[in-house]
Amino acid sequence: MKKDPQLGLSSQFVRPDEIKTKMLPTGMEKGLMRLILKNLGNPDVNVELWDGETVFPRKQQAPGIMIKGRSALWRLLTHPTLGFGDEYSVGRIEVEGGIVPFLDRFFAAYDKRQKESATILRLFDLYRRVRGNPVSRAKGNIHHHYDIGNDFYKLWLDKEMVYTCAYFAPNVTTLEEAQAAKMDLVCRKLRLKPGETVIDAGCGWGALALYMARHYGVKVRAFNLSHEQVAFARERAESEGLASQVEFIEDDYRTISRDANGQYDAFVSVGMLEHVGLKHYGELGGVVNRVLGPNGRGLIHSIGQNQFIPTSEWVDQRIFPGGYPPTLRQMMDIFEPYDLSVLDVENLRLHYAETLKHWLDRFDNQLDRVRDLYDESFIRAWRLYLAGSMVNFSGGHLQLYQVLFTRAQNNSLPVTRDDLYH
Amino acid sequence: MKKDPQLGLSSQFVRPDEIKTKMLPTGMEKGLMRLILKNLGNPDVNVELWDGETVFPRKQQAPGIMIKGRSALWRLLTHPTLGFGDEYSVGRIEVEGGIVPFLDRFFAAYDKRQKESATILRLFDLYRRVRGNPVSRAKGNIHHHYDIGNDFYKLWLDKEMVYTCAYFAPNVTTLEEAQAAKMDLVCRKLRLKPGETVIDAGCGWGALALYMARHYGVKVRAFNLSHEQVAFARERAESEGLASQVEFIEDDYRTISRDANGQYDAFVSVGMLEHVGLKHYGELGGVVNRVLGPNGRGLIHSIGQNQFIPTSEWVDQRIFPGGYPPTLRQMMDIFEPYDLSVLDVENLRLHYAETLKHWLDRFDNQLDRVRDLYDESFIRAWRLYLAGSMVNFSGGHLQLYQVLFTRAQNNSLPVTRDDLYH
Repeated sequence: MKKDPQLGLSSQFVRPDEIKTKMLPTGMEKGLMRLILKNLGNPDVNVELWDGETVFPRKQQAPGIMIKGRSALWRLLTHPTLGFGDEYSVGRIEVEGGIVPFLDRFFAAYDKRQKESATILRLFDLYRRVRGNPVSRAKGNIHHHYDIGNDFYKLWLDKEMVYTCAYFAPNVTTLEEAQAAKMDLVCRKLRLKPGETVIDAGCGWGALALYMARHYGVKVRAFNLSHEQVAFARERAESEGLASQVEFIEDDYRTISRDANGQYDAFVSVGMLEHVGLKHYGELGGVVNRVLGPNGRGLIHSIGQNQFIPTSEWVDQRIFPGGYPPTLRQMMDIFEPYDLSVLDVENLRLHYAETLKHWLDRFDNQLDRVRDLYDESFIRAWRLYLAGSMVNFSGGHLQLYQVLFTRAQNNSLPVTRDDLYH
Repeated sequence: MKKDPQLGLSSQFVRPDEIKTKMLPTGMEKGLMRLILKNLGNPDVNVELWDGETVFPRKQQAPGIMIKGRSALWRLLTHPTLGFGDEYSVGRIEVEGGIVPFLDRFFAAYDKRQKESATILRLFDLYRRVRGNPVSRAKGNIHHHYDIGNDFYKLWLDKEMVYTCAYFAPNVTTLEEAQAAKMDLVCRKLRLKPGETVIDAGCGWGALALYMARHYGVKVRAFNLSHEQVAFARERAESEGLASQVEFIEDDYRTISRDANGQYDAFVSVGMLEHVGLKHYGELGGVVNRVLGPNGRGLIHSIGQNQFIPTSEWVDQRIFPGGYPPTLRQMMDIFEPYDLSVLDVENLRLHYAETLKHWLDRFDNQLDRVRDLYDESFIRAWRLYLAGSMVNFSGGHLQLYQVLFTRAQNNSLPVTRDDLYH
């Protein structure tokens, strides 16, 4: 457990009142700011520059954003998402009226923006290339997601430590219930039967593997690369008397396929595909193909998107290095080569928006305890990430696909979904 | 109504006892037959050549196939599916023990066949190219699907004349119930509300359009290119008092988008995509995009497949010219360019196997009446098509995808599927 996460950005954190304005915004800088706003579809927010006077468009009731120095403006211009994320984290950009309302307006405008700004985009792109990426040295400053430590996640995840989209089934309101409902939905879709064997690839803190064993009587081999998560999961399996049913393996899920020969009844992966990388999808399909028996079923649950859009620079460099939410088309790289039949795709986008709302609320309720562990720039970055994800899901920019599949010749499953909902 | 469908193949129909065996099978021909069988994975069927003596592998209890002349063997060699279809239709190939058990064994072997026969395949391919396609003159001999006339389909479709995959919901056994269950499932997935407006693209004989109007109180504009089908549908709308709610338009569905401006609540297309052609998927997406309002929903129901495999030559040339069952990846060409969100994909493959079983049974029960309309080669071709389709669906070679989608920003739909199943 790292109590001192050595956040590179933390030393840069500045309180608004500490900022020294050396030079007033020039006419060119004001013009550039207007261009940025136009390029973003003129979101319904007020922007104040560092002289404290220049504000546009100065609308009543709109959330406000303050750009507290020249460097913040230029970073916005050259690396829009990374610049915003970093400058917000260290306090050189401030948001008034809450980050969620601001992001909501920002994305609403972005959806409707005129696409004729291609020339401006090209100019920005050219500038970016000429200028290079001087901020790359900041890379790695914010700890990668899964190194942060269990204690941090315990503060705001549900008690089972499920760090993926929950399922708000009818009459479900709490996050705890919704995570259990998600795990149960996954089990029902997989039509697990007692005594069956399951591979869980990317098992997190082990909640799903333990749930499957406890409620469906299956034997699970669960893979995870994170030492801390596996240790936590093994302890839970022991304390709940499930250690004979659930084996947690601290290794890459791909190692299973070395000695797998179609002897498993199910393959499940919840929230791992985002980290697999497009070029490894065929390899993932190959593992599934070697693992699954003739009537085996598989379920892959992943963040996705409607269209191929690269991950924002900020999320890629600060939050999920190498992460990418695939399109359904790209996910077919897993199934097609092995003649696996897609049986069911369900898009749970709005459930992730709701899940993130719960996480953000819990995070905010635990702010004092988070502050004991981490400094202000980490907290601001994390809130931006949770709020930004929430707004991306609620605004339709991100999807959540649950894909159920089986071998082409498997005729042994129920032919309707009625059993899932009764 | 064409009582005399001018089937080109009909004049060639030969009864087994009419076949004159001019020359006994040569050693080379027997060897070639063995190669064909090996290439097909050695299906568990007996093959008898035209001397009535050469039979291999002569297994007990296996279905038998008789190749009743030299030309049939050579056509099998050069155009496997087209040759089989045509030669079976005209009676130069006979199947003992029923076409369904034969096709079942054939496809079961084909799935498991050794793929090392690439050399043989290349030789066959070379031979095919050198020899050309001398049977192309037969093209168009069997009437294209929708020209055959209502009276023929009335003999074996359900009373609503639904010529697409039915839905065998729990406790549903009859084809009539299953077709109604399918139409209702489509309406429920689309979450139709009274007073809403719907585009039905490729409406067949109008059953779904009328069902939506009758049971969900929506207004439908339904498109179809077939004069006979539209006339039938209009008559039904009149006689059921639904003419003010359902407008049947004898035109290409794409014409709707000329004056459409996002004013429709739903777009539905059941069994049309198979005929749209891959290169027009983007155009279809464009029509959907112009038709749907901000909270509009769409459903496309289509035969599909797990992998890109070209349509068999026989089906392409004799049954569905230009037809093609897409992969899910290929279907994304419709949705991706317009940022349409896929909400739900359901694979109803086994429902189509069951539907086809009903159709084949009804067809067989009506054989005397079919014979009044058509000759033997037409009947054999049609039975081969129904049986072959059934076996392809039950064997996992064809899929049936129902894809529900909406605009990316539509947050107005139920977030679970529970309402579909209660």
